Amino acid sequence: MSTATGKQFDQGLVNTIAAETQMSFIDGEKGILEYVGIDIDSLARNSTFEESTYLLWNGRLPNPTELAAFEQQLRAEYELPAGVIDMIRATPADAATMHTVQTLVSSLSLFDAEADDDSPEANIRKAIRLVAKTPTLIAAFDRHRKGKEIIAPDADRSIAGNFLWMLRGEEPTETMVRALDVCLVLHADHGFNASTFTSLVVISTLSDLYSACSAAVGALRGPLHGGANEGVMVMLNEIGDMSQVDGFMKGKLERKEKIMGFGHRVYKAYDPRATYLKTFAEGLARDTGNMPLYEMSTRIESIMHEAVADKGIFPNVDFYSATTYWSLGLDLDLFTPMFALSRMSGWTGHCIEYLKNNKLIRPGAAYVGPHEVPYVALCDR
Amino acid sequence: MSTATGKQFDQGLVNTIAAETQMSFIDGEKGILEYVGIDIDSLARNSTFEESTYLLWNGRLPNPTELAAFEQQLRAEYELPAGVIDMIRATPADAATMHTVQTLVSSLSLFDAEADDDSPEANIRKAIRLVAKTPTLIAAFDRHRKGKEIIAPDADRSIAGNFLWMLRGEEPTETMVRALDVCLVLHADHGFNASTFTSLVVISTLSDLYSACSAAVGALRGPLHGGANEGVMVMLNEIGDMSQVDGFMKGKLERKEKIMGFGHRVYKAYDPRATYLKTFAEGLARDTGNMPLYEMSTRIESIMHEAVADKGIFPNVDFYSATTYWSLGLDLDLFTPMFALSRMSGWTGHCIEYLKNNKLIRPGAAYVGPHEVPYVALCDR
Repeated sequence: MSTATGKQFDQGLVNTIAAETQMSFIDGEKGILEYVGIDIDSLARNSTFEESTYLLWNGRLPNPTELAAFEQQLRAEYELPAGVIDMIRATPADAATMHTVQTLVSSLSLFDAEADDDSPEANIRKAIRLVAKTPTLIAAFDRHRKGKEIIAPDADRSIAGNFLWMLRGEEPTETMVRALDVCLVLHADHGFNASTFTSLVVISTLSDLYSACSAAVGALRGPLHGGANEGVMVMLNEIGDMSQVDGFMKGKLERKEKIMGFGHRVYKAYDPRATYLKTFAEGLARDTGNMPLYEMSTRIESIMHEAVADKGIFPNVDFYSATTYWSLGLDLDLFTPMFALSRMSGWTGHCIEYLKNNKLIRPGAAYVGPHEVPYVALCDR
Repeated sequence: MSTATGKQFDQGLVNTIAAETQMSFIDGEKGILEYVGIDIDSLARNSTFEESTYLLWNGRLPNPTELAAFEQQLRAEYELPAGVIDMIRATPADAATMHTVQTLVSSLSLFDAEADDDSPEANIRKAIRLVAKTPTLIAAFDRHRKGKEIIAPDADRSIAGNFLWMLRGEEPTETMVRALDVCLVLHADHGFNASTFTSLVVISTLSDLYSACSAAVGALRGPLHGGANEGVMVMLNEIGDMSQVDGFMKGKLERKEKIMGFGHRVYKAYDPRATYLKTFAEGLARDTGNMPLYEMSTRIESIMHEAVADKGIFPNVDFYSATTYWSLGLDLDLFTPMFALSRMSGWTGHCIEYLKNNKLIRPGAAYVGPHEVPYVALCDR
């Protein structure tokens, strides 16, 4: 809708392109997601979170020397400043995890002498710190709230492996590390979703990466954005076991209620992020004694396939990442923080890309209130 | 520019209206700013920060009973949770103030049992808490970093009076309280600026007010947004004294350099927020022994008036609020936090207004990278 001022009224910005990007491409009709042109399924099968992050930031895959150097840079930054550990210890055990992540990501800036250095070189270093330290602060908070000792990061491990190590204090299996790594690859970037766009609005004022990424966490926690993956697991727990699946689904479908983990605002075909994760979920379930959960999931998918596949409703990335996280032993309220941990790669990359051609983001408002209202003195009201 | 998808490419969103609002109206050509129809100059002269906040949130001025009740609600929320005080004590003395404010605003959510209650009633209570507690956390951090005892808030004082009390631990004069109060009224709202828009993107995911307002602080700290008012004072300090003003200005004008505190992206007429503040700044300067600073300011304004008034360049709200804050004894790096303290009123109000007709904000991206790039194995790169 055009307005009298010639400006376009577009609440939600569904008809507006906010900027150019070379990072990720989505075709929801065809079910395509590419990071810098490489399809997400190839990346899930072959790449790692570290390598995919390099790809998103640099526009190409690294050679072996570059990848090793990049992994070293990340691993050198796993540790948290002592002051952030103090902040974690000051956090109440019942604090909501995403509020905690937002607070702690912001607090990293208080201990970084480069926080306000906006040179491209400093921005890369800060992006590395954000990607490297976010897993540590999530694991440290989870240990703290459970009254367990905080486990220091291990620079000999990958981001996924180190996270599981810090969280559990037990050696994870290779399958577990790989399962988490696949989830991280799949969630690293997805166009200008609400949290990425939040980070762009913040960075467009020439603010900094900590401010932008902390802000993005705040958007991600919303139920209309990152908060959906918990819902899948809540549903599976509600169903209980295999014998209840058919009855539960029949009732849901008859009442035309939404099934968590199915359908996506963007994808009208099979969510390309779900394909490999599904294959992988089976091995993980077997390794971790969660086959009943896996079997419930496939039964739900098959019922949904018969019922609504012709309507373009397919399982989305949340459906199988939820059971993956559950099998890895993550608490329900760590699911969305996992999303933040992974998307940190996309947020920082998009901010740095946007700064190359920065323009302050400041839309107009349609004022629909009164004008020229007199100020009436308090005693006359 | 229309794209092949029929979507509008509008980086910066200058040609896009993001939503309706009944809170503030700006006409930059005519130099008009109204809160719910009442011109900002009347409000600066007659209203208070508390009353203006009520106006912005409720769409009308309160009667005496309503105002008294609203002030009581705010005053009952001045205190910080003990855990937030612990967070402040864990903050390094050299932490950047706006990063600290963003972190601490977010940390308030960790201690609020209603943090994730998104009922309209809980949102009002949280908005009250955010407006009431932000001054306390700024003052407490300033005391902490100076190694001074943190001063508890005094519920018998207005927000402006209480802030000066907590910051200084000395009785402020009536002129000082009124001067700060005027600044708070003037900065409380200003359409969909970048920080307000940030808060809307966050809340549009059905996230919460703490997440949204913490995110907004991150946008406000950017030099293209709230970070400008420090610059005025830096310039005045650089000039030094009255004898240097003419020479400094002559050089600046000859080199066609920007003079801090003049001109505004929106206002091409006299910034309506500067009018009363200017009158007021004189009395404050006299009371606080800062007449030389005031005289330098008026001399700069008069030189600028002769030189560039015909080009639509006038003093903006930063020009006189900077000298006001300086006269009140505020450190330079507390100027932008003052802006946050005041704009908290606008951010919370806009979020609550947006939620009445919520729509997820998710713009499109124009992907300009490659497609169908094969994944090449690491050993072959």
